[in-house]
Amino acid sequence: MSASASETIRVSEIFGPTIQGEGALIGQPTVFVRTGGCDYRCSWCDSLHAVDSRFRADWRPMTTAEILARVRALSGDAPLMVSLSGGNPAIQPLGPLIRQGQAKGYRFALETQGSVSRDWFSDLDMLVLSPKPPSSAMTTDWDALGDCVKAAASKPRIALKFVIFDEADFAYAREVAARFPYLPVYLQPGNHTPPGPEDMDACIDTEGILGRMGWLIDRVIAERWFAAHVLPQLHVLIWGNKRGV
Amino acid sequence: MSASASETIRVSEIFGPTIQGEGALIGQPTVFVRTGGCDYRCSWCDSLHAVDSRFRADWRPMTTAEILARVRALSGDAPLMVSLSGGNPAIQPLGPLIRQGQAKGYRFALETQGSVSRDWFSDLDMLVLSPKPPSSAMTTDWDALGDCVKAAASKPRIALKFVIFDEADFAYAREVAARFPYLPVYLQPGNHTPPGPEDMDACIDTEGILGRMGWLIDRVIAERWFAAHVLPQLHVLIWGNKRGV
Ligand code: SF4
Ligand code: SF4
Repeated sequence: MSASASETIRVSEIFGPTIQGEGALIGQPTVFVRTGGCDYRCSWCDSLHAVDSRFRADWRPMTTAEILARVRALSGDAPLMVSLSGGNPAIQPLGPLIRQGQAKGYRFALETQGSVSRDWFSDLDMLVLSPKPPSSAMTTDWDALGDCVKAAASKPRIALKFVIFDEADFAYAREVAARFPYLPVYLQPGNHTPPGPEDMDACIDTEGILGRMGWLIDRVIAERWFAAHVLPQLHVLIWGNKRGV
Repeated sequence: MSASASETIRVSEIFGPTIQGEGALIGQPTVFVRTGGCDYRCSWCDSLHAVDSRFRADWRPMTTAEILARVRALSGDAPLMVSLSGGNPAIQPLGPLIRQGQAKGYRFALETQGSVSRDWFSDLDMLVLSPKPPSSAMTTDWDALGDCVKAAASKPRIALKFVIFDEADFAYAREVAARFPYLPVYLQPGNHTPPGPEDMDACIDTEGILGRMGWLIDRVIAERWFAAHVLPQLHVLIWGNKRGV
């Protein structure tokens, strides 16, 4: 898959600036570009509106120039971090957007499950690899994950992020982290009440999330896994499951 | 003030490991060493048990060796981040602890209001300067704050952290950040219901904190202050005002 500037990108939504609510860049003002389409179907996916082909009609094919113009308009032309997410943004031709945006001072982080590697990963400022644990019901392609790490070479910061629901997920995160011992790890308690794809403002089980957060901290401390970070999804705590904030 | 290894340090509490709940190191497993005594009396201080001399009898004079032994016992001898806080930890002779702990693989972050500068700041792994905004009713000593930044030279990471309650605090943070444009900035919504010094588990106004968090995000975005991070105190959201977690 080559990425020429004339190809269009399937966009589910572009919104922000708002605060990055999770992971290594938590708290940073960010514009989010969420692409449509995913090669996975995680059991607890919280972005089905950007995954399920039932919603394909809502995904706009946009050129690199159109996306960049929208990002610049939203941010008042003041450079900031742009988060490329999905769905799986790695299946979209995002190389030209990253390079053209960086020329204007924007920085780019991409989050993907690590199932598809692209040579333009090396142009990113940050690559977040979020392999899916057993509770997702997906199977990890270890070669593809390794290829993603290699594609990013040593240029962008790379971090591993794991959504954790239970002990099996925790053991999986330990295993992946042991394969890449030099990568920083971010653990995130799973959201048992993700919004349905048509919900714009679903109910949220805040106490459940905070309870799992406490459990996850206890597990990390009990195992003396001091290289791990434990962070909740701030946007879920602040805004519940509301979309576009 | 020289810091010889035979001097004792006034310790209010040592606890952990638990997750760092705020600022640049948010989410990291950390042991906390809270020293007793402070040259400030912020109106909304949430650590009065480590500030008010009424509680002086609870502060144990400990040697560097005793503190390090306790930190190593708590962490099972597995090196991790140690947070030095207070009170104002800058008024304690912490240089030997930092150097001896680092020799064992521990890393040290120190958080201070920036009113007292010490030459051993340059040995830290991270210096968090948390100048107090107008709502604290304290007055900033700009020379001392500048001395702290200079003392840290270029060795440790330095970050500015601000507790923000209102517009005046926000304007203050903008002003300090403009004086040190190369330092990363972390903004934190203030806790209007800090625990009293004798409360071990005071009630907490979670909705109020999350509401101020939303307001703070809106202000940062409206001013396009994209270099700032906005983060709540996670430990307060997870555990309320409970101490020692
Ligand atoms: S990889 Fe991400 S976007 Fe795709 S189905 Fe899983 S959770 Fe949803
Ligand atoms: S500087 Fe910190 S410890 Fe001292 S009174 Fe103010 S808030 Fe409390």
